[in-house]
Amino acid sequence: MQVEMKPVIRVEKTKNSKISQVDFSNLPFGKVYTDHMFICDYKDGQWQEPKVIPYQNISLDPSAKIFHYGQSVFEGMKAYKDKDGKVWLFRPLENQKRLNISSKRLAIPELPEEIFMEGLKELLKVDKNWIPQSEGSSLYIRPFVFASGNGFHASPADKYTFIIACSPSGSYFAGKVKVLIEQTYSRSANGGVGYAKAGGNYAGQFYPTQLAVDKGFQQVIWTDDTSHEYIEEAGAMNIFVRINDTLLTAPTSDRILDGVTRKSILDIANDMGIDVEVRKISVTELVEAAQNGSLKEMFGAGTAAVISPISGFGYQDKTFDIPELKNSYAEQFKKHITDIQYNRAQDKFGWRYEVK
Amino acid sequence: MQVEMKPVIRVEKTKNSKISQVDFSNLPFGKVYTDHMFICDYKDGQWQEPKVIPYQNISLDPSAKIFHYGQSVFEGMKAYKDKDGKVWLFRPLENQKRLNISSKRLAIPELPEEIFMEGLKELLKVDKNWIPQSEGSSLYIRPFVFASGNGFHASPADKYTFIIACSPSGSYFAGKVKVLIEQTYSRSANGGVGYAKAGGNYAGQFYPTQLAVDKGFQQVIWTDDTSHEYIEEAGAMNIFVRINDTLLTAPTSDRILDGVTRKSILDIANDMGIDVEVRKISVTELVEAAQNGSLKEMFGAGTAAVISPISGFGYQDKTFDIPELKNSYAEQFKKHITDIQYNRAQDKFGWRYEVK
Ligand SMILES: Cc1ncc(COP(=O)(O)O)c(C=O)c1O
Ligand SMILES: Cc1ncc(COP(=O)(O)O)c(C=O)c1O
Repeated sequence: MQVEMKPVIRVEKTKNSKISQVDFSNLPFGKVYTDHMFICDYKDGQWQEPKVIPYQNISLDPSAKIFHYGQSVFEGMKAYKDKDGKVWLFRPLENQKRLNISSKRLAIPELPEEIFMEGLKELLKVDKNWIPQSEGSSLYIRPFVFASGNGFHASPADKYTFIIACSPSGSYFAGKVKVLIEQTYSRSANGGVGYAKAGGNYAGQFYPTQLAVDKGFQQVIWTDDTSHEYIEEAGAMNIFVRINDTLLTAPTSDRILDGVTRKSILDIANDMGIDVEVRKISVTELVEAAQNGSLKEMFGAGTAAVISPISGFGYQDKTFDIPELKNSYAEQFKKHITDIQYNRAQDKFGWRYEVK
Repeated sequence: MQVEMKPVIRVEKTKNSKISQVDFSNLPFGKVYTDHMFICDYKDGQWQEPKVIPYQNISLDPSAKIFHYGQSVFEGMKAYKDKDGKVWLFRPLENQKRLNISSKRLAIPELPEEIFMEGLKELLKVDKNWIPQSEGSSLYIRPFVFASGNGFHASPADKYTFIIACSPSGSYFAGKVKVLIEQTYSRSANGGVGYAKAGGNYAGQFYPTQLAVDKGFQQVIWTDDTSHEYIEEAGAMNIFVRINDTLLTAPTSDRILDGVTRKSILDIANDMGIDVEVRKISVTELVEAAQNGSLKEMFGAGTAAVISPISGFGYQDKTFDIPELKNSYAEQFKKHITDIQYNRAQDKFGWRYEVK
């Protein structure tokens, strides 16, 4: 057997834990940070010593390329604590791989799997007490890489910083979600960076989303930038549609993020014997289905938002309501996936990953 | 007459100037920074006290949204010193306005003109000795705004920081520029953020540009993302083509930056009586013109690169050379525009702006 090599991670613990100041029964999303963070710098062509250190500010030269050229990628994961206090991740290697897919497109050096995984595990051990145990709460985990090298020349940086920060969090959306099917703005181009979790993809969505919020919606459903006729995904969720009993979702492409929740739902649905179609979904089809009553459900799927039922959608000047359904697919999928995540059910797909 | 109001700018000067360490006869582009910077924070719904302070690091929480969501915009300007030591800007209000156009699209609060202009002038007065006087050198000026507020929720920040930093700089490109007409990747989407100087637009170009560099080109010419059939612009320059004696450039759109150099060239060309067409330019047309000899020139135009003659282009697997031309349009425009910028010629358009 080959010798397994693990990076040595230096751990420096905080002397002043903030944990007693946190109200774990009333957690916002992504606003409270744990006592530590994992950090690893890249310079001189290689990743440097990985460390767990007290959560602290980052100091950068004003010419650091992150400020100017948006050269950054990130991931979103969660850690779950079961009733026995055991800690679980959900398909973490999918996030590790996707981070590198994103990095490659953004000309950021890829990060070795061992640094990502060992850093993550070490951080979760040190901040274990921060992982909430209550229903609907979890530890949101944010791995990210950004250009920390300097210069006003529009070209890749020579230094990068990888950090994992964590936030005990409650739910992402407060209440029901109504979406607007976008007909003017776009999230991504053919041949662009839409499939990457690149920082700039998100900032570009803020203004159109604000316009939608002003009209009474919570999220935008992005459409293709050529015709605005095919629905793609939402700001931080892939989108599923149920027409009669068939579950539909758009195929991933270079414009759409290949969501871990999305692909898990597809596996669960197939396993449940649900009729699944991965294909383009046109707005025309969606509107017709809403009008003739065959549109039974719409929901978003993503790590942060889990499964978010959509209660209606706007298209041009009309709004279409989607009546609430008993025993919906959304409800069933949510139960299935969270039961696996919180170690309340059998894990037949082998998705759970214990941190110990 | 109305009373003119100017923001009061607090100035704190450095005690340790770095200027004696700089070799002004051999300046790189954007790598050496002056002694001071202008800074103004936005919080609680308004811009705070503007200050000129010693050039220094910025300290940010790891959850600052700039690291995660690419919420940033920037500008690029230059200050020129004439032979009498007077300091000039070129159409600075165009940059000020464009910064706000960019900010709006990125859901960043707009910055009042007075803060931008007074801050810029104050900074240039304090760092006046840093403005190079030698031919081909100038002080590159980088105003930028970024999301300094915190949170892992993908939504606009509640705090922003505006900074102007300056760098005495030499030329942007070393030597001749050969470009690759991109047929796979894209810079921007219809309805996207391509017309904004948004950070994320630049990071997205790095990887395709690296691939082009590996093939022996210096820059990519972006094409529309639907057909890759119309040429749009380059990484940090608008593109002009001369076919016979007609000067062509693509119209600006929501995918193309409305360059200050581009529009100045158009005015100069019209004034010189050159035949100008602002219209879509197809790759087919360009290739045909290269083949039949009617393609006389191609050049990029931008603040950083000024006018950069293009010596050839790649398209699919072919390379087309553009033979050097005596008394080219590029040469003439470059002389015209730099003569205005360095106060060596009459300024009939009223573009020069003295800093005193
Ligand atoms: C744009 C976008 N789409 C979809 C998703 C859902 O992906 P995942 O299920 O892997 O969290 C996310 C969030 O990560 C996202 O940012
Ligand atoms: C994408 C892009 N196009 C064109 C330009 C040229 O614009 P300007 O002439 O205003 O510098 C720039 C540089 O500013 C740019 O970043």
